[in-house]
Amino acid sequence: MSIVKDFNDHRTEMNKKIMAQDNLVMKRFFNLDSRTYEDGALPKKTKELLGLVASMVLRCDDYIRYHLGSCYDLGVTKEELFEVFSVANIVGGSICIPHTRRALEYWEALEAQ
Amino acid sequence: MSIVKDFNDHRTEMNKKIMAQDNLVMKRFFNLDSRTYEDGALPKKTKELLGLVASMVLRCDDYIRYHLGSCYDLGVTKEELFEVFSVANIVGGSICIPHTRRALEYWEALEAQ
Amino acid sequence: MSIVKDFNDHRTEMNKKIMAQDNLVMKRFFNLDSRTYEDGALPKKTKELLGLVASMVLRCDDYIRYHLGSCYDLGVTKEELFEVFSVANIVGGSICIPHTRRALEYWEALEAQ
Amino acid sequence: MSIVKDFNDHRTEMNKKIMAQDNLVMKRFFNLDSRTYEDGALPKKTKELLGLVASMVLRCDDYIRYHLGSCYDLGVTKEELFEVFSVANIVGGSICIPHTRRALEYWEALEAQ
Amino acid sequence: MSIVKDFNDHRTEMNKKIMAQDNLVMKRFFNLDSRTYEDGALPKKTKELLGLVASMVLRCDDYIRYHLGSCYDLGVTKEELFEVFSVANIVGGSICIPHTRRALEYWEALEAQ
Amino acid sequence: MSIVKDFNDHRTEMNKKIMAQDNLVMKRFFNLDSRTYEDGALPKKTKELLGLVASMVLRCDDYIRYHLGSCYDLGVTKEELFEVFSVANIVGGSICIPHTRRALEYWEALEAQ
Repeated sequence: MSIVKDFNDHRTEMNKKIMAQDNLVMKRFFNLDSRTYEDGALPKKTKELLGLVASMVLRCDDYIRYHLGSCYDLGVTKEELFEVFSVANIVGGSICIPHTRRALEYWEALEAQ
Repeated sequence: MSIVKDFNDHRTEMNKKIMAQDNLVMKRFFNLDSRTYEDGALPKKTKELLGLVASMVLRCDDYIRYHLGSCYDLGVTKEELFEVFSVANIVGGSICIPHTRRALEYWEALEAQ
Repeated sequence: MSIVKDFNDHRTEMNKKIMAQDNLVMKRFFNLDSRTYEDGALPKKTKELLGLVASMVLRCDDYIRYHLGSCYDLGVTKEELFEVFSVANIVGGSICIPHTRRALEYWEALEAQ
Repeated sequence: MSIVKDFNDHRTEMNKKIMAQDNLVMKRFFNLDSRTYEDGALPKKTKELLGLVASMVLRCDDYIRYHLGSCYDLGVTKEELFEVFSVANIVGGSICIPHTRRALEYWEALEAQ
Repeated sequence: MSIVKDFNDHRTEMNKKIMAQDNLVMKRFFNLDSRTYEDGALPKKTKELLGLVASMVLRCDDYIRYHLGSCYDLGVTKEELFEVFSVANIVGGSICIPHTRRALEYWEALEAQ
Repeated sequence: MSIVKDFNDHRTEMNKKIMAQDNLVMKRFFNLDSRTYEDGALPKKTKELLGLVASMVLRCDDYIRYHLGSCYDLGVTKEELFEVFSVANIVGGSICIPHTRRALEYWEALEAQ
C-alpha cells in the first residue's frame, strides 16, 4: 500500500535473511550500525540528521528513507528537514536534487500515515 | 503513459513543493541551477552536454534524463550523443554502462514522442 | 516473470542497440569489458569477485546483478558471496547495505531458476 | 609554518582569484555556500557538523579541514568530533579511515595554535 | 620547477612503466582513452571540456590537470574555463571548490610557462 | 626516507591516537576492519585483492597503499597486480589511471625495500 510500509517490510525481511547467513563480519557490522546513532556526546536526533545528510550526498534513496523514518519518529520538523536538504544540496550539488524530490515524497508519506 | 511524461510530471510536481517550503538556500540554488546552462562564453548546447556527461559519470538516471530532454530539444544528434556516452564511459568506467542503456532507452522515448 | 530474465533481456536488447550505433570507442570499450574477466594470472572466478566487490562499493545494482549472474554460473558458494559482501560493506560502509539486500534477493532468484 | 595557516592562506588567496573572475554563477554559489551554515531552524553548530560529516563521506580533505576549523571555533568537543567520525566511518566505510587520520591531525594542529 | 612540468614528467614516466608491463587490457584501455578525445561529431575542444567537467565532478586533481593542459593548448579562454567550473560546481557541489582552487592555480602555471 | 615507511609510520601513529580516544564505535569498526581480511571461505589473498580493487575504484591512495603492502607480503605477483589494475580501470574508468600510476610507484618502493 504505502511506500513506507513497502520499504520497511522489504528491509526487515532481507535484513533477517542477511543475519541468518551467520557471517560474523556482516552481523557485527549491522550491530555496530545501530549503535552509531545512539545518544552520546551528541543526541540521537543530531546523529540521525548526520546520517541523513551523509546518505543524501552519497545519493542512496533507501538509506535516505531509513533516516527520514527515524527523523520523523524523533520529531524533526519540516523546517529542520529542509535545512538538512540545503546542506546536502550545496555540498553535494544539484545531482542531489532528484533524491531531494524523492525524500520529500517519502516524508509526505510518513506524514500521511 | 510515456517515461518522458512520467519523469517530467513528477519533477514538476515535487519541485513546486520544494519551492513552496520557502527555504532560502534551496530556492536560490534551484534558481542558480537553471542559470548555469544559459548561453555565455560557451553556448547553451555545450553546457547541456557538460551537464549530461557530469550526470553520467555521477551515475544519476534522473539527472541524465533531464539533460537528455534539454539536449534533444536543442537538436543534439545521435552521433553527438554517443560521443558524450563514450567520454562518460571511458572516464567513469563500465559502471556507467547500465546508465548508458537507460539513457538510450529514454532518448528513444524522446524520439517517439 | 523473474527479475533475472527481466534484467538479462533488457541488458541484451539495449546492448545490441548501443553496438548498432557504430561508435568506435563504445564498441571497443564493450569488447574490452568482456576481456577483462577472462582467465589470466588470476582465474576468471577471482576476477568476477573483483568485479562484484567493485560494483558493490560503487553501488550500482545493475552491475552487481551482472556479476552475481557470472559468479553463480561459476559456482561461487553463498559463504564466499557473503565474504565479498563483508568486504564491500566494511570498505564502502553501511550505504552498501541496501544494495546488499537487493543483491541477496537477486541471488535467491538465481537459485530459484 | 602550521598546516592550519597554510590551508587558510591558500584558500583565501585562491577564493579571491575565483571571485575576481566575475563569473556570476560561481560568485552566487560561493555566497550561497556561506549562507548554508548560518543559524536557522538548526543551529550553526549542527550545520557545521552536517557539513563535516558530508565532507568526510565524500572524502575531501580540504573541505573536512574547513569544517573542522569552524567546528573548533564553535567549541565542538573532541567527544562530539569522534561521534561525527563514527557516523562518517560507519556510513562511508573504512575508505574514510585515512581521512579520519588526517582530520585528527588537523584538529591537533588547531588545538596547538 | 613548475607544477606543470612535475605533473607531465611523472605522468610520462609512470605511463611508460604501465605500458611496459604488457597487460593487454591496460594497453588497449590507454589507447582507447586517447582516441576518446579525437575530433568526431563533436570537436576535440568540446570533448576536452567534457573530460574536464567529468574529472571535476569526480574530483580527481591529476585528471583535471591533464584536461586543463589539453584545454590550454586548444585555446580555451578563461571565460570558457570558468563556465566549465560553474557547471562542475553546481552539479557536483561545494565539495568541488577545493579542486576548483587547485585547477585555477594549475591554469595560472600553464599561463606562466 | 621511503614512501613505504612514511606511510606506515603516519598510519600507526594516527591509528594509535584514534584508538586512544575510546570511542566505542570507532574501536569496534577498526577491529572489524582487520577481521574482514582473515582467511575464511575465501583465502586472505583473495580478500586483499578485493580490498585493493575496492580502494582503487573508490580512488583512495592511502587505502590502496595499505592493501598493496598486504598483497606484497602475501606474494601477489606483478602479473596478478596488473590484472587487479585492469579490473579497477575498466570498472572505474580512466579516472583511476592517476591512482594506478601512484600504485605502481608504491609497489616499486615495496620491491626496493
